[in-house]
Amino acid sequence: MKYSYVSHLSCSKTSKKYDVNTVQNLSDEGSPLLVEYDLESLRKEWKKSDLIGRENNLWRYHELLPVKDEQNVVSMGEGMTPIIEMPAIGKDMGIENLYMKDEGIIPTGTFKARGAAVGISKAKELGVKELAMPTNGNAGASWSLFAARAGISSTIVMPIDAPEITRNECAVSGANLYLVNGLISDAGKIVGEAVKEHDLYDVSTLKEPYRIEGKKTMGLEIAEQFHWEIPDVILYPTGGGVGLIGIYKALKELQALGWIKADKMPRLVAVQSAGCAPIVKAWEEGKKESEFWDASETIAFGINVPKALGDFLVLDAVYETEGCAVSIRDEDVIEEQKLLSQKEGTFVCPEGAAAFYAARQLRQNNWIKEGEKVVVLNTGAGIKYPDTVNVEVPVLEKNDSIQPANDSAGGKL
Amino acid sequence: MKYSYVSHLSCSKTSKKYDVNTVQNLSDEGSPLLVEYDLESLRKEWKKSDLIGRENNLWRYHELLPVKDEQNVVSMGEGMTPIIEMPAIGKDMGIENLYMKDEGIIPTGTFKARGAAVGISKAKELGVKELAMPTNGNAGASWSLFAARAGISSTIVMPIDAPEITRNECAVSGANLYLVNGLISDAGKIVGEAVKEHDLYDVSTLKEPYRIEGKKTMGLEIAEQFHWEIPDVILYPTGGGVGLIGIYKALKELQALGWIKADKMPRLVAVQSAGCAPIVKAWEEGKKESEFWDASETIAFGINVPKALGDFLVLDAVYETEGCAVSIRDEDVIEEQKLLSQKEGTFVCPEGAAAFYAARQLRQNNWIKEGEKVVVLNTGAGIKYPDTVNVEVPVLEKNDSIQPANDSAGGKL
Repeated sequence: MKYSYVSHLSCSKTSKKYDVNTVQNLSDEGSPLLVEYDLESLRKEWKKSDLIGRENNLWRYHELLPVKDEQNVVSMGEGMTPIIEMPAIGKDMGIENLYMKDEGIIPTGTFKARGAAVGISKAKELGVKELAMPTNGNAGASWSLFAARAGISSTIVMPIDAPEITRNECAVSGANLYLVNGLISDAGKIVGEAVKEHDLYDVSTLKEPYRIEGKKTMGLEIAEQFHWEIPDVILYPTGGGVGLIGIYKALKELQALGWIKADKMPRLVAVQSAGCAPIVKAWEEGKKESEFWDASETIAFGINVPKALGDFLVLDAVYETEGCAVSIRDEDVIEEQKLLSQKEGTFVCPEGAAAFYAARQLRQNNWIKEGEKVVVLNTGAGIKYPDTVNVEVPVLEKNDSIQPANDSAGGKL
Repeated sequence: MKYSYVSHLSCSKTSKKYDVNTVQNLSDEGSPLLVEYDLESLRKEWKKSDLIGRENNLWRYHELLPVKDEQNVVSMGEGMTPIIEMPAIGKDMGIENLYMKDEGIIPTGTFKARGAAVGISKAKELGVKELAMPTNGNAGASWSLFAARAGISSTIVMPIDAPEITRNECAVSGANLYLVNGLISDAGKIVGEAVKEHDLYDVSTLKEPYRIEGKKTMGLEIAEQFHWEIPDVILYPTGGGVGLIGIYKALKELQALGWIKADKMPRLVAVQSAGCAPIVKAWEEGKKESEFWDASETIAFGINVPKALGDFLVLDAVYETEGCAVSIRDEDVIEEQKLLSQKEGTFVCPEGAAAFYAARQLRQNNWIKEGEKVVVLNTGAGIKYPDTVNVEVPVLEKNDSIQPANDSAGGKL
């Protein structure tokens, strides 16, 4: 068996073929390129049982990933994040079978590590020496750290309001880091100019083909972790939407392999913030693409993306699976984040909290039915966003005394 | 087979037996209690191959953990953290076979989750409703979040200088939280009074018997992940030292089971900060216990423990394995942390960086020999300590342009 069954790239709009063995960005039509595999051979040669005993990270699916030579894999053990039961918050919502896939339990603390691991590994395989990207913070952190591990230098531009910790991660990796007094779209313009002028490898969201493949592994893992019986609903906080595109792609590929049933897809839910909901608006209007969202703002910084390059792919996945798109207000995000910590001990990121609140809403209006199996993606660790938790704590001197929890003047939210 | 083969508790000084089915703290002599198992039955009934296909978290070793009924397990998927190769920094140090076990890839972002998961699960089994503890931050964060998941209320006291993110984690969990203008030893005194007065369950380091069992799983995992061929040297950042005690206990138990060779132990290295090195001082003087370290101070906050209750157990493990104890200066910690990020893409916590610097030193003076297999424990994610990275980053306006990495005015450390 080969390490990878990758065959070629194809334009997501025209299906025109591109070579997978040279550096590629967008198609000639300016659309994202998708990675294609020789699924026919794989169907014959690859069995579920081949996974038994493999390393517990996303490279266990290497046949369905684009890196051809194992030597080029750049890994810090990312993937196979836990799926945990959420019985207390599930009861609170009326969702008996509620699960969280916790993407905070991964190097760099967010699901961005998946795209970075696969994207950087393939960049290494293709001989890339220097890359550039705009970021809302977490992607830049992941890509610059994986790039450092691969010996690739990186130039990163992020909004000045991006989470501060991600700034530290980029800096400590040795990246060439800039802040911009604006949004990710402004950072994108600056990177775009630099890429043209200095001939850098542009790894902006969907401008290189391999990030989707990394994100796709979330879908592969959900299928395997549920023993190839896929859940009814998957909720996903959606900025650029690559995770949702990837999960959909993964499940289609698993259907082609015959590893999951061909007649059932989970309903995919794209969750956005009320302060930046271009995909929700497009979905509500039945459109195939979104429009730029002016003056976007939300505490869920990772999904503050006013216009996603892959919006049409996200919408397609939502339509095809009979999913939906919903937007959540910041105050509901904060309240849900607190509830999740207090009832389940899970300190999720604001984007993850938004997706949980969406599940709550969709159960309330009965879009999620009684007894359905529901998986929420928490895309990152709450500790990367300490500012979403405000706390007043009493300060004691050395000989002070305290009261126990149930009768207390101690610090509360 | 039974879920757990726990048999009883024994005093770590006198070996006197205590009941494992009721709430226990210290022994009558004021020493930590250790958990004992029916290793004789286990040796007959439990095989390495039983682990195949089990969940990829620390509960895969439930036979060797103290929770009797699986229903009482409180888990967020903790454990089986990755062991990753560190070839670039290894080459830099002259250690060809250098590995990191990355305890940042775990719920709450530090190895404290292990002690909390097992400690809280057993507390739940014993019917505990309310607990209290002093903490340098990360243990409080882990215990309060796992307690929330178990429906147990918690009172936490931490130094005002403890990492701010851990304060947020405790608060968001709904804990009864206090700061103290002092050290963890001062927090401990305040908790001690409250425990007596209000009859709370005291889960201070080693004052309950089960935290060691959680930490022990690091040793079990290292053995399994290296296919039961244990490495030559394990370096561990040592504050309270429970991890080191636990790793040693795990390896002794695996020897008793016949799962690893009976005649080889890794040399265990206790790494402390130059600003707080009571165990190093005791080891250098050949003593069996440490003395209180006055006016301790270090950026590696998790190992700022002036006098550990289990110091004699740490020293015993170091002597018995022919290990050693070394102290590292803060400036070397910061430099090593930066090197690790830039060469390997691994943003470790300062405590982890201290342990890597210790490996560098011990190789330099040839205590670590050429070709030896060396494992460094990174006890937490660097993102929990953003303040250890200082960065000046240029701020751009929307239409500014930038230079690529190799010719740049971008932000650097």
